[in-house]
Amino acid sequence: MRAIVERGLAEDLAPFGDVSATLLEPDTTATARFRARATGVLAGTGCVDETFRQVDAAVGLVWLAGEGDRIAAGDELAQVRGSLESILIAERTALNLLGHLSGIATATAALVAAADGGCRVWDTRKTLPGMRSLQKAAVRAGGGWNHRANLSDWIMLKDNHLMGLSIADGVARARDRWPARTVEVECDRLEQVGQAIEAGADLVLLDNMSPDQVRDAIVLVDRHEADGGRRPLVEASGNIDLDTIGEYARTGVDLVSVGALTHSVTVLDIGLDIEPQNPE
Amino acid sequence: MRAIVERGLAEDLAPFGDVSATLLEPDTTATARFRARATGVLAGTGCVDETFRQVDAAVGLVWLAGEGDRIAAGDELAQVRGSLESILIAERTALNLLGHLSGIATATAALVAAADGGCRVWDTRKTLPGMRSLQKAAVRAGGGWNHRANLSDWIMLKDNHLMGLSIADGVARARDRWPARTVEVECDRLEQVGQAIEAGADLVLLDNMSPDQVRDAIVLVDRHEADGGRRPLVEASGNIDLDTIGEYARTGVDLVSVGALTHSVTVLDIGLDIEPQNPE
Amino acid sequence: MRAIVERGLAEDLAPFGDVSATLLEPDTTATARFRARATGVLAGTGCVDETFRQVDAAVGLVWLAGEGDRIAAGDELAQVRGSLESILIAERTALNLLGHLSGIATATAALVAAADGGCRVWDTRKTLPGMRSLQKAAVRAGGGWNHRANLSDWIMLKDNHLMGLSIADGVARARDRWPARTVEVECDRLEQVGQAIEAGADLVLLDNMSPDQVRDAIVLVDRHEADGGRRPLVEASGNIDLDTIGEYARTGVDLVSVGALTHSVTVLDIGLDIEPQNPE
Amino acid sequence: MRAIVERGLAEDLAPFGDVSATLLEPDTTATARFRARATGVLAGTGCVDETFRQVDAAVGLVWLAGEGDRIAAGDELAQVRGSLESILIAERTALNLLGHLSGIATATAALVAAADGGCRVWDTRKTLPGMRSLQKAAVRAGGGWNHRANLSDWIMLKDNHLMGLSIADGVARARDRWPARTVEVECDRLEQVGQAIEAGADLVLLDNMSPDQVRDAIVLVDRHEADGGRRPLVEASGNIDLDTIGEYARTGVDLVSVGALTHSVTVLDIGLDIEPQNPE
Amino acid sequence: MRAIVERGLAEDLAPFGDVSATLLEPDTTATARFRARATGVLAGTGCVDETFRQVDAAVGLVWLAGEGDRIAAGDELAQVRGSLESILIAERTALNLLGHLSGIATATAALVAAADGGCRVWDTRKTLPGMRSLQKAAVRAGGGWNHRANLSDWIMLKDNHLMGLSIADGVARARDRWPARTVEVECDRLEQVGQAIEAGADLVLLDNMSPDQVRDAIVLVDRHEADGGRRPLVEASGNIDLDTIGEYARTGVDLVSVGALTHSVTVLDIGLDIEPQNPE
Amino acid sequence: MRAIVERGLAEDLAPFGDVSATLLEPDTTATARFRARATGVLAGTGCVDETFRQVDAAVGLVWLAGEGDRIAAGDELAQVRGSLESILIAERTALNLLGHLSGIATATAALVAAADGGCRVWDTRKTLPGMRSLQKAAVRAGGGWNHRANLSDWIMLKDNHLMGLSIADGVARARDRWPARTVEVECDRLEQVGQAIEAGADLVLLDNMSPDQVRDAIVLVDRHEADGGRRPLVEASGNIDLDTIGEYARTGVDLVSVGALTHSVTVLDIGLDIEPQNPE
Repeated sequence: MRAIVERGLAEDLAPFGDVSATLLEPDTTATARFRARATGVLAGTGCVDETFRQVDAAVGLVWLAGEGDRIAAGDELAQVRGSLESILIAERTALNLLGHLSGIATATAALVAAADGGCRVWDTRKTLPGMRSLQKAAVRAGGGWNHRANLSDWIMLKDNHLMGLSIADGVARARDRWPARTVEVECDRLEQVGQAIEAGADLVLLDNMSPDQVRDAIVLVDRHEADGGRRPLVEASGNIDLDTIGEYARTGVDLVSVGALTHSVTVLDIGLDIEPQNPE
Repeated sequence: MRAIVERGLAEDLAPFGDVSATLLEPDTTATARFRARATGVLAGTGCVDETFRQVDAAVGLVWLAGEGDRIAAGDELAQVRGSLESILIAERTALNLLGHLSGIATATAALVAAADGGCRVWDTRKTLPGMRSLQKAAVRAGGGWNHRANLSDWIMLKDNHLMGLSIADGVARARDRWPARTVEVECDRLEQVGQAIEAGADLVLLDNMSPDQVRDAIVLVDRHEADGGRRPLVEASGNIDLDTIGEYARTGVDLVSVGALTHSVTVLDIGLDIEPQNPE
Repeated sequence: MRAIVERGLAEDLAPFGDVSATLLEPDTTATARFRARATGVLAGTGCVDETFRQVDAAVGLVWLAGEGDRIAAGDELAQVRGSLESILIAERTALNLLGHLSGIATATAALVAAADGGCRVWDTRKTLPGMRSLQKAAVRAGGGWNHRANLSDWIMLKDNHLMGLSIADGVARARDRWPARTVEVECDRLEQVGQAIEAGADLVLLDNMSPDQVRDAIVLVDRHEADGGRRPLVEASGNIDLDTIGEYARTGVDLVSVGALTHSVTVLDIGLDIEPQNPE
Repeated sequence: MRAIVERGLAEDLAPFGDVSATLLEPDTTATARFRARATGVLAGTGCVDETFRQVDAAVGLVWLAGEGDRIAAGDELAQVRGSLESILIAERTALNLLGHLSGIATATAALVAAADGGCRVWDTRKTLPGMRSLQKAAVRAGGGWNHRANLSDWIMLKDNHLMGLSIADGVARARDRWPARTVEVECDRLEQVGQAIEAGADLVLLDNMSPDQVRDAIVLVDRHEADGGRRPLVEASGNIDLDTIGEYARTGVDLVSVGALTHSVTVLDIGLDIEPQNPE
Repeated sequence: MRAIVERGLAEDLAPFGDVSATLLEPDTTATARFRARATGVLAGTGCVDETFRQVDAAVGLVWLAGEGDRIAAGDELAQVRGSLESILIAERTALNLLGHLSGIATATAALVAAADGGCRVWDTRKTLPGMRSLQKAAVRAGGGWNHRANLSDWIMLKDNHLMGLSIADGVARARDRWPARTVEVECDRLEQVGQAIEAGADLVLLDNMSPDQVRDAIVLVDRHEADGGRRPLVEASGNIDLDTIGEYARTGVDLVSVGALTHSVTVLDIGLDIEPQNPE
Repeated sequence: MRAIVERGLAEDLAPFGDVSATLLEPDTTATARFRARATGVLAGTGCVDETFRQVDAAVGLVWLAGEGDRIAAGDELAQVRGSLESILIAERTALNLLGHLSGIATATAALVAAADGGCRVWDTRKTLPGMRSLQKAAVRAGGGWNHRANLSDWIMLKDNHLMGLSIADGVARARDRWPARTVEVECDRLEQVGQAIEAGADLVLLDNMSPDQVRDAIVLVDRHEADGGRRPLVEASGNIDLDTIGEYARTGVDLVSVGALTHSVTVLDIGLDIEPQNPE
């Protein structure tokens, strides 16, 4: 987070600092209020703290709402007091991060609500370079869960990796090379699902399947479990959105992954109302 | 760009690299094709080049479409040939950047088309930390223009900076301290517009004004020019979108700034179709 | 790896470069040979490549042995040809990395051999700051396996985390918050082992148990499996070394973790024999 | 040190932080004690301070033993109080550094004791990339001395540099190009020693010589001094260890360099005993 | 500034710190005084603060003179109190920055005085890599102004860019691609000046023109303004120095740029008088 | 050097690149020539290579003069061929480094010539942060020598370090703690010189002494040598310049250090003449 804020500030200030602020009377102070201009879920408060800390540790910042809280348009979220110049310098970097991460949390919360407890919602690796940790933390703030962090985190077997190897052999090879590490198998067809279950995958990914196909896959999992087998987690993916997640949630699938949570973020509108005080 | 790609790859690969790729037969090669799955404008091709260069300089990459080109769903955009492992490792970082930046270019092009030549469309400082240069380049790729780069680039006079100073005095002070640097004045009310024009601002920002209010402001500018004065550029901002930009464009305003271009990006769907070759 | 080599070279060369090399006749070239002075397993060849690449891309380097190969005292491992000054500059950084990583691979291979197929040997988080990825890759080169990468990789439940919570509740909470992520339970006593198995842990860590205690734990696992339960992996740890691993391996334990693999490395002695050529 | 700790923490925490710690009750605090589990010399206390500072500046840390102190198994070394989560996050990075550096100090102290005042013990450039400054400081903490920092620090004349040049001419060239900088000459044979002394080297390195050969070399130095010449320092190197250093020390040699001090470190076993407090 | 000070300190301290300071009695403290040894203008005070902050936050530092103040030989500028070792470590880095930046400010002030209000003095891009922001801030501290920050800041049209394009077309293209961004035209001949004025350049650069030629150019500008045209700023450049700036200033030119301000800096002699206190 | 060039380019190009170059016809190429506009000594050629390499590896660069060569006004130094845009982008960074470093080399050569072989000329630690290695290499290119690199390089005993300790005890302590490392003693008075010689300092610094005082000090050294003692090197410092160095050189002093070599650099005027080719 420190590095991201540093980059944001450097980008916004180099090389002269805020040239407009050079016109201010010296020592002008201000009170400012972060205020929600839309309804959603708050995320990124730590980034705001870090931004003000890097700009001017003497600025005071008090939060009235916390990470993961639902907020409504008009709510006052935090109060800031200190040098007007410092507040103006921090403003944009703080708001850019807060709005983006709250946007992710808000979209996550909406999907979680739409799933209505039928399944869990998690994210993907479709994140922006350098922002993945923060974006995934915002998914958690919105009540969602995190899929694998990266290519190194767990094994995902796709057709591309198998190349003639059976799914059973692929899973066995994964277990052999990377003991205790999660193994997921991506399936495009029902027959692969059966193979993945038999192979003992921890996680079965149903990619681009309709709710009916997902239901058929779940039947296979149920049957496997009824036969005394270990039940893997089942995940559905493929352009599932607010309109369709309810239907997927009712199939009995465990998890739905949604790339849009992080690749197509709508900012949550949050503003900073600044009231300068004339120096006396 | 180099640093962004480095961060993206590090984030996706640390600490073990692609554990799934360790299951591949050694020396497997592949041909892969970047293919548009939606219609839009291509941006970020340089990031894809850089990603493959960093992962494996021996991978060959040929573009069939160029930065700023309109592309349609199904179009083949580039061909890649080389180590399957390298292609799998580069895939997500390359697609994340390409999809995001093409999303910006596509949205920009749509706004530019909707403005129908009536005004120019430019961006804001509402960008993601560390991504501003790339995001602003994507706006240019989409046919848009770039507003100021950062707080250091040109002077923006807002109420917060003036604090009792008149607009005329504020502009004079800006000219005095920062000769030859662009001076913009943000106006919420028509009377400020008149003052900004008189003060000789280079750029007058009409914030959150209706098309009618914008038209009134343009009348002031026209009159000033008719009286032999220098005509400033006039910019409108404030939640102007695809639905409303046409009306603003017909007011005679020179520029419309749209924060959503960079703060609320919808990814352009681009995929990578990989065909592995069995090693012989 | 790039960053580590950069740091190694910077540390060895700043600020004047190799002052001794300034005494050389200009344009002196040399042939040099990496040669094993002890028997072991080779690891870190990529670091040597990277070191020479950073110092002088014109130096030619050909490997006669590969990553993970067993090597004997006297074996020639690689040939280098190029500028004598470049070879002298790269020498120490290359050897420091090669010797350290080959030392890890060699110790790993010895433990794997001593386990004689009875169990697998893996590493810990007891690595040197900044070196973890390379050290863990050297463990793989030596025929060992990698335990979790870091605190973020999988859940390890210890007494410290439970604080009154039962193991069953702890595992359930882990599953709830981090779906599909590996959950390991550290056990100091046999009764905890039974609880961890019942709770459905993926991995049960037997910390500081004697071979007999480990055997008792395996009995519990066997019984659980015989009752139709899922068999977790079982890991033993706690100062297990070359003398004792054989006995542990015969208990039926799946994995033995050995901190000494990375925290107490004995370098593998590898030298670089340089033969300068007088410039003609 | 700051950068090393940053790398250690990043490596251990990215991308989600400590996932196990997310299971803790919020606001749990703890007291923890660093405790020696073996006898040795303490080094790296500053790294522990820096680790806790970076993780959570609110954690209190009080040392009961200091850098360079001899410590015995069971000794309490430091007390830590603060957030349990912060302590768990800092634990491994702090212990990895403390154990490694104390291992170096301990081995150094053992060699210094074995030399029994007959000679001084110093280190080499056989260090781990990025760790050289800390490793060399640990040698000092253990009562040893530091050889040259790097290739840039002083001139070391080896056969490779001379290439037909006499030692006398080599030393003269070094004096000519790098006035006031230490000049050392590496000698494999007694005749070179005589030449190095005559040439006025500051330091004569006897590489891979037996104690008898070293004694012969010292005779040459004594004779040179008796003849009114300046006495250089004489250093012995080449796999000298705890068993053989005593005999070398009795030869009259000034310094013995030992690569194993930093290239083959055995960790000093130090643990952190954590006692969580239930939040009230 | 943080990064520059870090580099300065790293460069001066790696790898052992201040070896001379290791000879000090522990806990020795000192009082030290920054004192001007020549007359000039103070700049770089923030760098001194940052240097001491990085070395040892416990050192107290009080300024008796401020950024941009005129100082005379013998003036006490600041008092420092704290650990003698910390003061010795910070001394050189602090003085190097303070002397260099005050040297820039002093030379700027001399040129501004010589211009006697006839024109403004500003800098160029002829700065030292990594130092541009600080050097340009020192120009402002000396009462000068800042020309464009870099190649990205504003458009400079030279013959090289035009290649057959007329100046009018070049300026139009610049306006078209980079709305509201400053456009400057470099002119070597009077006829180009006329074209640049007609084209509506914001800034006309008269490169290597004599005062008479500058006067002729100003006549063109005056005439253009008298005809109701907008008056551009006019800048002269080309080895203008303390001896010649007065004559240029009397031509009516608006700005004179002087590369020597940053490319040929004479340090302002400032010393640090240290009085150690014997520990009691 | 790589990092310095990166910083220079980043500073000159962020965030949009060269906006003026966006007006060029695509694919325009050029030939350019580095040409001396003054007489001096060339230094920094490697920085120019690195700059073009980072900007565009396809640009060809051929040197007609080499590092350390004397060059005269009008001499062509190097030829460059390639993309006009790349040449324009690299131009300023390359020239800033080349001019600065050649300025240092030129001033060094002048002082060396003025010393007329009577003494050697070396530099100080009065360098610019981040530039020390390059600046000290330029001193060597100009025929000068390098004093200690930094505080860690060798021991400098000043009054501040002694605090009641005699010079003899100070030198002994330095020898004890840092064997084989150069020990220098700074002397303000003749009596200290005698003590330093007796104490066996490697280097005696005569600070701010007149040529007569230096001569007196040399007498002491001569006498010490005549008495069979070891002759230390003697260095004079303190505002010695082109006018006075000759007189110092005739005193018999070994070395003269000149801070101005690096703290008050006058750029050597070198230009880049660019001839664009119209694309056909």
